[in-house]
Amino acid sequence: MSLLEQIQSPEDVKKLDYAELPALAQEIRERIIATTSKNGGHIGPNLGVVELTIGLHRVFNTPKDKFVFDVSHQGYVHKLLTGRNGESFDKIRLNDGVSGFLSRHESEHDAFGAGHAGTALSAALGMAKARDLNGTDEHVVALCGDAAFTCGITMEALNNVASTTKRMIIILNDNKWSIAKNVGALPRYFNELITNPVYNRLNDDIEQLLHKVPGGESLINFGSKWKKETKDFFVSSSLFEKFDVRYIGPIDGHDLKQVEHYLEFAKQAEQPVLLHVLTTKGKGYDVALESPERFHGASPFDVKTGRGTPSPAGTPPKYQDVMGQTLVKLAKEDTKVVGITAAMPSGTGLNILEKELPEQFFDVGIAEEHAALFAAGMATNGQHPVCAIYSTFLQRAYDQIIHDIALQNLPVLFCMDRAGLSPNDGATHHGVFDIAYLRCVPGALMMAPANEDELADMMATGLRWQGPAFIRYPRGNAAGVPMKHFPEPIEVGKSKRIQSGNDIDIWALGTMLADAEKVAARLSEHGITAGVVNARFAKPLDHDALRESAKAHSLIVTMEDHVVTGGFGTGLAEALLDLDVSCPVLRIGWPDEFVEHGSSVSSLREAYGLNNEAITERIIHRLRKMSSADVDISK
Amino acid sequence: MSLLEQIQSPEDVKKLDYAELPALAQEIRERIIATTSKNGGHIGPNLGVVELTIGLHRVFNTPKDKFVFDVSHQGYVHKLLTGRNGESFDKIRLNDGVSGFLSRHESEHDAFGAGHAGTALSAALGMAKARDLNGTDEHVVALCGDAAFTCGITMEALNNVASTTKRMIIILNDNKWSIAKNVGALPRYFNELITNPVYNRLNDDIEQLLHKVPGGESLINFGSKWKKETKDFFVSSSLFEKFDVRYIGPIDGHDLKQVEHYLEFAKQAEQPVLLHVLTTKGKGYDVALESPERFHGASPFDVKTGRGTPSPAGTPPKYQDVMGQTLVKLAKEDTKVVGITAAMPSGTGLNILEKELPEQFFDVGIAEEHAALFAAGMATNGQHPVCAIYSTFLQRAYDQIIHDIALQNLPVLFCMDRAGLSPNDGATHHGVFDIAYLRCVPGALMMAPANEDELADMMATGLRWQGPAFIRYPRGNAAGVPMKHFPEPIEVGKSKRIQSGNDIDIWALGTMLADAEKVAARLSEHGITAGVVNARFAKPLDHDALRESAKAHSLIVTMEDHVVTGGFGTGLAEALLDLDVSCPVLRIGWPDEFVEHGSSVSSLREAYGLNNEAITERIIHRLRKMSSADVDISK
Repeated sequence: MSLLEQIQSPEDVKKLDYAELPALAQEIRERIIATTSKNGGHIGPNLGVVELTIGLHRVFNTPKDKFVFDVSHQGYVHKLLTGRNGESFDKIRLNDGVSGFLSRHESEHDAFGAGHAGTALSAALGMAKARDLNGTDEHVVALCGDAAFTCGITMEALNNVASTTKRMIIILNDNKWSIAKNVGALPRYFNELITNPVYNRLNDDIEQLLHKVPGGESLINFGSKWKKETKDFFVSSSLFEKFDVRYIGPIDGHDLKQVEHYLEFAKQAEQPVLLHVLTTKGKGYDVALESPERFHGASPFDVKTGRGTPSPAGTPPKYQDVMGQTLVKLAKEDTKVVGITAAMPSGTGLNILEKELPEQFFDVGIAEEHAALFAAGMATNGQHPVCAIYSTFLQRAYDQIIHDIALQNLPVLFCMDRAGLSPNDGATHHGVFDIAYLRCVPGALMMAPANEDELADMMATGLRWQGPAFIRYPRGNAAGVPMKHFPEPIEVGKSKRIQSGNDIDIWALGTMLADAEKVAARLSEHGITAGVVNARFAKPLDHDALRESAKAHSLIVTMEDHVVTGGFGTGLAEALLDLDVSCPVLRIGWPDEFVEHGSSVSSLREAYGLNNEAITERIIHRLRKMSSADVDISK
Repeated sequence: MSLLEQIQSPEDVKKLDYAELPALAQEIRERIIATTSKNGGHIGPNLGVVELTIGLHRVFNTPKDKFVFDVSHQGYVHKLLTGRNGESFDKIRLNDGVSGFLSRHESEHDAFGAGHAGTALSAALGMAKARDLNGTDEHVVALCGDAAFTCGITMEALNNVASTTKRMIIILNDNKWSIAKNVGALPRYFNELITNPVYNRLNDDIEQLLHKVPGGESLINFGSKWKKETKDFFVSSSLFEKFDVRYIGPIDGHDLKQVEHYLEFAKQAEQPVLLHVLTTKGKGYDVALESPERFHGASPFDVKTGRGTPSPAGTPPKYQDVMGQTLVKLAKEDTKVVGITAAMPSGTGLNILEKELPEQFFDVGIAEEHAALFAAGMATNGQHPVCAIYSTFLQRAYDQIIHDIALQNLPVLFCMDRAGLSPNDGATHHGVFDIAYLRCVPGALMMAPANEDELADMMATGLRWQGPAFIRYPRGNAAGVPMKHFPEPIEVGKSKRIQSGNDIDIWALGTMLADAEKVAARLSEHGITAGVVNARFAKPLDHDALRESAKAHSLIVTMEDHVVTGGFGTGLAEALLDLDVSCPVLRIGWPDEFVEHGSSVSSLREAYGLNNEAITERIIHRLRKMSSADVDISK
């Protein structure tokens, strides 16, 4: 039995001898590499925190003590050490497997779930204060990556730490990477903490250093007096001391003894401390070390070569690549067009712009609010910004969209990637609320393409719009239609009829169009003729076409990759009320609940009764109900 | 003609002699005091920036140069100096008057509008980068209060400043106040910059200081060598230098010569600079100096005494006070109940809790995201947090509501103040989107009280809900109903019928109930009998009562103080679709556009065709149209 197999709970980690720990670390790495190579997952971040997580579980006692992992994609080691090294880990990120993130529903050892970055410090501070009020004595440890400090919430929390509690441990897990290379002043500053001789000693060592310089003795005397008075000298001049948080480090996050030693030290501290731990993303796996960005979160790959499975010839391009390539075309034609990402250049496809037109590309860090406001500022001064942000992360910039962009009618185009399900990541990453939260924004233009050529055309359309424009499209491969050489704007608010049918009319938004056509084909097998409309716009809706559609059909069905509450179908029903045209509307979309992770979009659709077969049945059921009601009326 | 009357544009400010400036400043103060005493407004912040704004307009040239005022409630002086010292300033914040905030629609001198805090640095950075790309040479100046740095967006922007542009001027307008006293480590640190002898000299003066201490000479030699290598010694160890922004200051913001001198200096800088300017909120007006919080933004008052107009006897309590008092009752009964505000203790009424139960009260600064996450963290550890946040500011915590609170089903109660219109403040402050953006959140409970007793009961209800609960209520006086001694939870999702009527049924949400009753009375004069329902819940809706209502009436009218797009009425229409009950719905609410500021809610309702007379007419019109349609059908 391997060491890892012996570990049923953190208690078992504590029982191991030091001498056994490197072997345990090695087994954990092998387990993670083997599993992620099959399922995909956040391999790099997890390989980087193996020793740190072992150390945490040897020094602290979960579930009594609370660990809050920022983003929590680095929680695989923690899962393996807290009773989840079984079949459910084999299926991590798949149907019936554990989540790729921490989850309070999954384990009592998961004090806080996450999937978005920058939340750990803030949530941990809430726990620590609750502990103080409860009069209990558990430890609270926030594990934050260096990139988390580019996110404003972390800084909001940091401002409150010292005035809120006397006991809290912050671990700065510094691997120099966000998903891409980190940006801005703070990561540079963290690097200075490492390389600068003033910082790379702990407190007691500083004086040793000063003995060696001329005048050092009097400097020490002067300094220690000064230090007392000003609390701001030598090591204490670090950024964190400005926030009254004691800085310790940097230490080697792969040296188990050092990690345990300093965690024990932090545990005793009577003021909030930040322990600066240096880790290496992808540690112990050469191919991951060579390509930290690709192995941040990877699709399945070959363990030996690190190569992913090549797509078969003829596979359509990804929407992400189409977005990036189209943006390059548009930005070459109009140099005022710039692209902005919040730490997601490769995920969004903006890395294509970065490579081709680096002057017109901006990565602002994990800072969606700033991304939107920075775009707003640029838009007031003659530039035309395109923000590529995942639908779920755009929730962070909601106030800026309303208060800064829409209210001032500024032309900013948002390419909302990952709209719809992000199946392996699950509820934290699904982009299924954007229509509901954006439809109420005055002046917003909302589009969804049915294929890659339409995506390009919609980008050209959005760039002509005076005000905020939004395009929502999913992750993954496009439809495989031929693309025009250069995108052409389409008429705002104009839908496109795909086929006619007398009985019902299906209005499909975005990539649901293909499914709508399949549903229509299934219905025809039951003798029901269905029209199909590519809605293209969620706002403004095509009122003329809608009026005709309602008059000519006994039922309108809407299909969208979004929750039904407040979504596209609701907007259509609203429009019918405003037009004073009566027609029953059956809204197909995700239900009013959080959808968990799963192996694929199709497996989740099936689980939620949203595959094309189930949709067809729902429509038939509805029509039967209507006709029996008609019978009632005619009696 | 006074000096102020001679100023038609910033050019005229530049023509004045230094000797004339104090008199100009005095005239500006008198003008602001006289006007705000009649109209109400942000008196304190404006009295604090008189000299600073004069200096800005003497050194820079708007509209070519860009000023970005954070929050922009301190823009009155700027308005007076940029051609807006006329009748429109007499009516500031009223119908036909200028806005109380900057607005791009109002003047070319207003480079960026605002109303929410923390946006200036980020937007200004966008402008500066656009300038760099455009190859033009205008200056960009961001004017940020010290409180803006408690807001994460400012810190996100600060992280990006130095890597984005070489030319940008940040003014830290330090008056030590948010609306209430500032909180957290950063404001304390700013104070240290002022009082600490290490900082209160500009660069060149530091060496003079060191000559006086023993060992100072060698310290200087050592220090200057060290400084070169580490860029982190003496003054350059300020927080801002960690962000590669040059710190200058602090300077006296009421000394016109000093202000101009350092603005000129900043203008020449070839790296981003932050000029720390000390100002006094309420400067030049004794009563405002004595009560900085009350005179941050004041209702009309007597200039001599500073006293507001007392309410007539029998005036109902404010919703804000009821919230605060009720929370005290609930928090005394259950000590796990805590209250959290994001820098708005007096505006929300949480100051009542602060006074009575300071241990259960938290002000986290202008940090709505952290407020929600801090609450989430507390909720995981046995506390029961109540966040009192204005509806419009809660837009900032949208992602935390979805990703952290709802997804984890944590019990956090949000008291959404200022739901509906905030008439004098205008579009930046209206809380008219919250139902639309919250209705799609799975597990959210959404309530709106019709009177103060119901508000208290809903607070008790919300505290029993496992998951996020929201109560929306407006600014100002409640209905004046008697209140129970202690609040009692009401049944979740249960509406309350107020009166019956055969023809139509009016479903009113929250304080619209009183208007619904008046509309019903007007309708009865036209021979139309209207039922009236107090909906109480926007989510979940009372499906049973709704089904009965739809079956028994030919028209349902919804009334809400919210935009019609995606709001309460839409939710009701959605529910009818889901229930498969057909009934026309007429949705009354604010239109799909931004509503400007105005003298009062009633004047804005009238302007938008939403007073009770107009609503009554719309209903009658709709009924006539329906009956003529019936005639058509019967033919």
